[in-house]
Formats: sequence, C-alpha cells, structure tokens
Amino acid sequence: MIDQLIKMIKSTGAPIVVGLDPMMKFVPEHIKKAAFAEKGETLEGAAEAIWLYNKEIIDKIYDLIPAVKPQIAMYEQFGIPGLVTFQKTVQYCKEKGLIVIGDIKRGDIGSTSTAYATAHLGKVQVGSNLCAGFDEDFVTVNPYLGTDGVQPFIDVCKEEKKGLFILVKTSNPSSGEFQDRLIDGKPLYEHVGEQVAAWGEQMIGVNGYSYVGAVVGATYPEQGRILRKVMPKSFILVPGYGAQGASGKDLVHFFDENGLGAIVNSSRGIIAAYQNEKYKSFGAENFADASRQAVIDMIEDINSAFEDAGK
Amino acid sequence: MIDQLIKMIKSTGAPIVVGLDPMMKFVPEHIKKAAFAEKGETLEGAAEAIWLYNKEIIDKIYDLIPAVKPQIAMYEQFGIPGLVTFQKTVQYCKEKGLIVIGDIKRGDIGSTSTAYATAHLGKVQVGSNLCAGFDEDFVTVNPYLGTDGVQPFIDVCKEEKKGLFILVKTSNPSSGEFQDRLIDGKPLYEHVGEQVAAWGEQMIGVNGYSYVGAVVGATYPEQGRILRKVMPKSFILVPGYGAQGASGKDLVHFFDENGLGAIVNSSRGIIAAYQNEKYKSFGAENFADASRQAVIDMIEDINSAFEDAGK
Repeated sequence: MIDQLIKMIKSTGAPIVVGLDPMMKFVPEHIKKAAFAEKGETLEGAAEAIWLYNKEIIDKIYDLIPAVKPQIAMYEQFGIPGLVTFQKTVQYCKEKGLIVIGDIKRGDIGSTSTAYATAHLGKVQVGSNLCAGFDEDFVTVNPYLGTDGVQPFIDVCKEEKKGLFILVKTSNPSSGEFQDRLIDGKPLYEHVGEQVAAWGEQMIGVNGYSYVGAVVGATYPEQGRILRKVMPKSFILVPGYGAQGASGKDLVHFFDENGLGAIVNSSRGIIAAYQNEKYKSFGAENFADASRQAVIDMIEDINSAFEDAGK
Repeated sequence: MIDQLIKMIKSTGAPIVVGLDPMMKFVPEHIKKAAFAEKGETLEGAAEAIWLYNKEIIDKIYDLIPAVKPQIAMYEQFGIPGLVTFQKTVQYCKEKGLIVIGDIKRGDIGSTSTAYATAHLGKVQVGSNLCAGFDEDFVTVNPYLGTDGVQPFIDVCKEEKKGLFILVKTSNPSSGEFQDRLIDGKPLYEHVGEQVAAWGEQMIGVNGYSYVGAVVGATYPEQGRILRKVMPKSFILVPGYGAQGASGKDLVHFFDENGLGAIVNSSRGIIAAYQNEKYKSFGAENFADASRQAVIDMIEDINSAFEDAGK
C-alpha cells in the first residue's frame, strides 16, 4: 500500500492528504436544512448532513490528490449513525480511487490491538466467512504501550498489504509535555522514532519505504529534520499545515532529496475553505469549489517551497 | 460519578470490575448457532452472538459487582453491527444499575479529543437538540499527546459529572519500552502519574478521590505501590488480574488503608470462566453460572488478601 501511495503521489504531483474531519459548524446551512428535513435534528440527521457535505467535497477534489484522512472522532461523536457515515465515506473514497488513511490513533495490547487492526485494516472470521469492518488502507497508531501494542497492527498489515503511521511527535502545543522529555540525552520522540524505524524493517516496499510510517507535526520543522534522518525509510504523515500554523517552507525538511518521504495533511483549511476570507467569494452554496481551489493552492505552495529548497 | 463508584464498591463489597471483552472463541457453540441461524455468518450474526452472550452474563452477575468495562475494540472489529452491540451492552448495563467504564483508550488533540469525549461521555448539539452517542460513565484515555489531549475530556467530565482513567503504567510485558524510561532520574510513568494527579485536582469528589483516575497494571505491583503515593487522590483501575498473571496478593498496594482507591478488572477470567479447568463442570450451556462463580471467587481472593495485609 505504501508503493500505491507513492505511485499516486507521483501521478498527482501532490504529496498531500485531505483530512475529512467534518464539524457541524463547517457544514453549510443549506445542507443541514436538507438533511434535518429528511431525518430530523437527530444523530441520523447530523450523520446525513456530514455525508452530503463529504460527498460533494470528494466529488470536487478526488482527481487532484492521492489520499484522504477521515478523523474517526468527528464521526464517532454522532454515535452509530456517525460511524455509518464514516464507513460510507471510506468506501466512497476507495471507489473514487483514493487511498484512505483512517485517523483512529488506536493503541492497546495483544488481542485488543489485534481487534482494532482487524476492525480497520483486516477481516474478521465469522463462522466460515471472512468479513471486513471498516477497511481503510492505512491507520494511525499510538505507541505508548510499546511493541506488543504495535506488533498486532504490523501483523495484520503484512497479511493485508496495508500500512501504519505511528505517532512520534504530534503537532499540538503541549505535545512536548511527555514527547520532548530527555531520556539518555535524547527526547522521547526520538526514541519512539528509532523504534518506528526498527518496526518498519519488517515490511519494506519496492520503493525502499516501509509500510510502517510516522506522524510528525508540521508545527515542529526542526524535529522533522531530525526525525527524517532517524527514520530514513519511514514515510512521514505531517499534520498541522494551514489552520495549525505551518506553511510550505516549514515542510521541506520532512521530505527526502527526491521530494518523497512525506505526505502533508490539511483538514479544515480545505474542507472549510469557503469560511476562510481568501475563498469567501465562492459562497456557501459553492463550498466544494472553494475546497478545490484550496487544494490547488496548497499543492502550489508546497511545490514552490520545494523549488526554493532545490528539491 | 467517582462518588457513585465508591458507593457501589462499598455496597457490593467488591472492588472489582468485569471486563466485557467478548471474543468469538469465548462464545459457546449453542449461542453462535442460534445467532447465525437468525442473521447468518455475517457481521450481524457475530454481533448478535456477542449480544446474547453478554446479556446472559450480565443477568447472572450484575447484583455482585459495581461496574463493567466493555473493551470497544472487541466490538469495533465487527464493524457497525459490533458497535451497535457495544451500545446495547452499555445501555443494558446502565439499566441494570451498573457503572460502565468504556475501555476506549482514545487520545487526540483539541477539537478531536472533544469529539471523542462527546461521543463517549457527553452530548452533541444537533440543531436545537442535544443527542448522546455512546454515553458511558467513565472512559480510559491515552496521555501521549499531553494536556491538550486530556483537558477536553476533563471539560466534558465536569459538565456531565463523569470520569476518566488515564493510562499510566499498562499491564503488558513491553509496557516498559517507553513507560519505564528514566527522565530526570524517574521513569516516564511516574511523570505521567504526577500529571494525572495535577489534572485530577480540577475535579475532586466528596470522598476525596478525583474524577480523574489512572490505569496501572496488576502485573507491576511495585510500581503500583509507588504510583499509589504519587497520585494519592486518583482511583486506580487495575487490569491484568487473572489471565494476565496477577493475583490478590499483588493488588493490596494499589489500595489505600481503607481498602479503597482501586478497582481491579478481570475480563476473560470471568466471562470465559467456563473454559477454565476450574469451572469446567458447569458446562458450556451454563457458561454464565460459571462466570458468577468466578466473580464470587475473585471477590473472595481480593478480600482475603486485604485481610492478610490488615486492610
């Protein structure tokens, strides 16, 4: 799956992933009105509104990008109907040819990690049948529980030829509280990065990159530069671009000399672009056109930063 | 909710929680057969089997215990139908008067953590309505992302009078890989424990215990003794009893001098008791009676360890 991702990054010329993290405040009024008219001001109504909103954005941007990253929390908050929309979104994106990174940040131990991996990447045995639950292509994983939390995910990935992005240095302001603490003279995130590199050796794709990648926030470019070297074969999923404050020039160190090795996420900067001053002229009715323009501008921003950096 | 938990621990005399972590291999053949006959060898069939299995166990043990802890991964692996069974299980346990600890180990940042907290402890605004997603009483949370990952959970807890258990030292063999690393002469888990104590100060119940508790594995009794002192006001949720190898005598240090301050989880030791040599005579048909006996024996084991320790 990492090879498929690299192929699609090359064919689109866009090392970016769009975060499908819908919040009700992003959904235009006319969509909410239509959904609530049909299903009421209920969890079902909210889930329908989000589905209509997602679908229109996907239809307008799928040809520009290699991948999407739905954040499951944003669906989970609407209970079962929300998770049905998550599942429909995953399936619809796959039908459109997109790679789906489930941003689930799960992490547990032993058989419980196996169950999460099965839920999101694998198939579960029911009697004589194998059934898929959510069936994303990649998921994000929390490393706090150590190898016996992560290995079950790797085992399912091996079987299904799918991949992981493991949290190493997250983009939030307080990520340093534990992640930056020095252990034997090196911050915890570097130790985690070394472990990610070691885990990744089990599964290297034909392009030399591992199926086991890492999450490193765009808001920490210096750490990105270091971690790029600590994990030379790990693809880096980079959140924090746009709304969280990072721009194209912060990102170049996350990539290798061929402009590969990283994929940059933007969520609200794309899906709620129409609420941004810059794209306001599109209007709420044309919110998905605003999203398309924001994707085009993001690709341009990153590629021009590459050019400035000679990558 | 922590006061409610303490009240129920006192009234049952059982500082224990039963982990409802169903695996298909635990579900007796006659139940699988009935569920598959009705719904096929599908995700729906599996989810129905697990629901029937859970319900029979709950009916047989609810009067003995204060709380249950369903592990959501075990339901999530069966996709949407599995999560419907999770939700039904949560609701059914609450109707039976049990406190429900959702073992979800979620952890993210900012608005995403808020979404998870809303999903599992709070209510989400849909138009003019407030709707609940899964509605557990407590959830487990992963601390790796730091304060801005955890604070949104605390905020929702304040509003809903619900509680948290934050992973500090997990019960698995490789938990030390990161958690035991020394930072300024102290292991990471101790730093996390100190932070849990600090977070907990925001929300102290009438019994002097905080709404913000901790998870510390029974498999690490020495660390439990230290963490009991580091977090004097944090209730400790203790996994790892039974199947993972710990017994009553390992547990006494997790408790305070009044026999409070901790709640010990057993999952497969209870729900799959009928597969254990000790309870085999019950037979698969009477699996829930075996579970009841296993609960009684566990309470006895812990209370006699208290007596030996003079607590």
